[in-house]
Amino acid sequence: MAQQEERVKVALVIGAGDSTGGEIAKRFARGGYIACMTRRNAEKMQPLIKEIQQQGGQAYGFASDARKEEQVIELMEHIEAKIGPIEVLVFNIGANVPCSILDETARKYFKIWEMACFSAFLTGREAAKRMVSRERGTIIFTGATAGLRGASHFAAFAGAKHALRALAQSMARELGPNNIHVAHVVVDGAIDTDFIQETFPDLYAKKEQDGILNPAHIAENYWHLAHQPRDAWTHELDLRPWMERW
Amino acid sequence: MAQQEERVKVALVIGAGDSTGGEIAKRFARGGYIACMTRRNAEKMQPLIKEIQQQGGQAYGFASDARKEEQVIELMEHIEAKIGPIEVLVFNIGANVPCSILDETARKYFKIWEMACFSAFLTGREAAKRMVSRERGTIIFTGATAGLRGASHFAAFAGAKHALRALAQSMARELGPNNIHVAHVVVDGAIDTDFIQETFPDLYAKKEQDGILNPAHIAENYWHLAHQPRDAWTHELDLRPWMERW
Amino acid sequence: MAQQEERVKVALVIGAGDSTGGEIAKRFARGGYIACMTRRNAEKMQPLIKEIQQQGGQAYGFASDARKEEQVIELMEHIEAKIGPIEVLVFNIGANVPCSILDETARKYFKIWEMACFSAFLTGREAAKRMVSRERGTIIFTGATAGLRGASHFAAFAGAKHALRALAQSMARELGPNNIHVAHVVVDGAIDTDFIQETFPDLYAKKEQDGILNPAHIAENYWHLAHQPRDAWTHELDLRPWMERW
Amino acid sequence: MAQQEERVKVALVIGAGDSTGGEIAKRFARGGYIACMTRRNAEKMQPLIKEIQQQGGQAYGFASDARKEEQVIELMEHIEAKIGPIEVLVFNIGANVPCSILDETARKYFKIWEMACFSAFLTGREAAKRMVSRERGTIIFTGATAGLRGASHFAAFAGAKHALRALAQSMARELGPNNIHVAHVVVDGAIDTDFIQETFPDLYAKKEQDGILNPAHIAENYWHLAHQPRDAWTHELDLRPWMERW
Repeated sequence: MAQQEERVKVALVIGAGDSTGGEIAKRFARGGYIACMTRRNAEKMQPLIKEIQQQGGQAYGFASDARKEEQVIELMEHIEAKIGPIEVLVFNIGANVPCSILDETARKYFKIWEMACFSAFLTGREAAKRMVSRERGTIIFTGATAGLRGASHFAAFAGAKHALRALAQSMARELGPNNIHVAHVVVDGAIDTDFIQETFPDLYAKKEQDGILNPAHIAENYWHLAHQPRDAWTHELDLRPWMERW
Repeated sequence: MAQQEERVKVALVIGAGDSTGGEIAKRFARGGYIACMTRRNAEKMQPLIKEIQQQGGQAYGFASDARKEEQVIELMEHIEAKIGPIEVLVFNIGANVPCSILDETARKYFKIWEMACFSAFLTGREAAKRMVSRERGTIIFTGATAGLRGASHFAAFAGAKHALRALAQSMARELGPNNIHVAHVVVDGAIDTDFIQETFPDLYAKKEQDGILNPAHIAENYWHLAHQPRDAWTHELDLRPWMERW
Repeated sequence: MAQQEERVKVALVIGAGDSTGGEIAKRFARGGYIACMTRRNAEKMQPLIKEIQQQGGQAYGFASDARKEEQVIELMEHIEAKIGPIEVLVFNIGANVPCSILDETARKYFKIWEMACFSAFLTGREAAKRMVSRERGTIIFTGATAGLRGASHFAAFAGAKHALRALAQSMARELGPNNIHVAHVVVDGAIDTDFIQETFPDLYAKKEQDGILNPAHIAENYWHLAHQPRDAWTHELDLRPWMERW
Repeated sequence: MAQQEERVKVALVIGAGDSTGGEIAKRFARGGYIACMTRRNAEKMQPLIKEIQQQGGQAYGFASDARKEEQVIELMEHIEAKIGPIEVLVFNIGANVPCSILDETARKYFKIWEMACFSAFLTGREAAKRMVSRERGTIIFTGATAGLRGASHFAAFAGAKHALRALAQSMARELGPNNIHVAHVVVDGAIDTDFIQETFPDLYAKKEQDGILNPAHIAENYWHLAHQPRDAWTHELDLRPWMERW
């Protein structure tokens, strides 16, 4: 649907773990983008980078803490100067640690917000500044059902995800007229990750029936969003397994 | 993403005008579906059918009033018996006629609901019955921003579209576990139609800047929805031009 | 908070059953309004009317079918001509009959909408016309959680209640500047009624712990809404028992 | 409606400026509560305390920074030990400073969240701990329309208010079954304050027609919420002037 232009273009994935973020990076690399990825531990991205390179793609990994303004700025400056213009930014850091409101510590409440929302603000703002100067770009935030409603024992996570959704909406409304497409994806359900496999084996067992989200299929929707013609942009879509109760 | 199977499969578009419904029919025909379409006046679908056939596709048009239960049942029975199983149903009838609540007639209030909601119930139910027996299928309802909030002078249209969204949500929650994918598309903005061109020329002038929705691009999103793997289904997405205020 | 003026004023309750509607009528009668009530069977309102009269209030009951435009108009004309100006309209007809979408009949789908939404449109419009000419009035619609989201087996009820909420919002936005206060009350939980007592005894047993809604307490909130000063009007509030899961 | 018990009871208002917070304190003092109030500058509360005392009420002011965990804990411990049990907590700190996302500083984005959300978490949690041990209490958060949707130039404020609403919802769902009533009030419109008078004189001029919110009328709704019988609690209500566009 989108014209494949020959110019160099970067897709930057903030929070490229083994699962969703990694699959998104691979999808955009396969589509001709240079995949740039961040994770606090750069070493862990090596297999992913190798995989992308073996498929003929280009990929770079950065140890960068998205909560630190100076690191975010440095990252963006480096990429834009040395690699290419950031055409797509995907923010993909979560921080879902449930707790009773009565026991929630100030430190954890803050950290969940800092990881899942403040990082999104910093990376979103820095990407937006550069995209606005070019009058094009796509920014996608990975959200969750907790961004739509609060729940018992999820005050911290729901707060961060609500704030993230507010950021996405506010940016979409401000930056749409600058030709920047800002989208928010509501992932509702367990994703096929090592964490789910180890921690919730019963949930993981649903995989056989397609009952948990395949990260590669999530990635396909990010690709779809990033290539919608600008007369028909989606701001928000949800993703959930067919058998999920909601 | 989806496996292309060789079996005969029908995409039925209820309300296939010259614009969105027609483009959806063409998109699915291009993708290997037999396009079945309804419109109250069958004659008007002839150019569309011819266009699909010239592109190598198969298409049938039916004069069928979606507000009439017996006509809906007859239509579905005919298609399933003579053409093939309805794998995709798209409901695409709107009825946006603003009016002050003080002047709204009972007749018009009823008719708007009948066209935009009751028809959706009848066609959705009949398609669902058949899909459930096969344990697969996709049903997509075309919604509008009026389905999300009421507005002055839009009590009738907003009511019908809210009810349509409730139908879509209720069906998705009930039928998801039957492997039926039910989705609701919120179209927010003017679509490139003869009606907009003739009635709102200033609005239509935005077309040059991609400021109104291209029906072919809407159709591409319906195709995307209908082919999401079942571990990652979207129930709702919005579509709006980049420069639209919202 | 509100000035108690000496003028004759009518509170009209559409759907004054033994429970919520009746308590609302009693509350407004106690506050100096002439309570007018409708129910399809006028006979059944006699105990309620007597109770109000014994407490020194004034009350009238009307057998009026809110789905019939001519009956609604006749009712309003009669009240305004013979009794007094309708200062408060409360619409309180529900129609919650769950059913699988696969089995829902067109007749029942229509009837639920007709009772829970179309009646609200007819009575709301007729009251609004009269209130607008006086530049004052309050219209309160009794909603439900089904007005906020669809649910499996509730396509019909959710559709009607969504449409009702759209009506309330559209009217509030149009008529607010005419000094007409339009509100929507989301009742989320079982109400203390004969029906609940007989049909769901386990649910009813929660009454001892205040686990089901007391109709008199619901009525108090309607009174509160109807007497908010116009610089601080509430359009929507929810009501639910403390122990309700939501 | 509520039983007036003779026991000592405290209503604590976090953020008792001259306007809304102050009126809420006065309302609860008038109703028999000991009003405790915080503001960063204690001196400024003196006139308010004097006014309450002259009306026969009891009031205490505290210079306490709600963003500081140790100060919040100290405040609560002091009140509970020396004055009485906190039966009602009202959180009333806002921080509405619009800015383009492109120019928003990390420092301001953080501070708006810290004031409008983190403070609410700290005070809400500390009050909840004490209320849970008594199995009763009311917590009311002052929200805004920005808590419901994002807007251009309001990413920071909308984020904080969305997170606040998530906190309120999560706490309500967790603590309702502990007999703690948690509510969220959406104030939609300008309030009659010195700030509005000085900064937006045109807006302030609407006061003559009741076009801006009277803080005393807002307070009346908080009183209403705090005294709803527990079978019919409201979690969320909105407040807006009759002539406000929304």
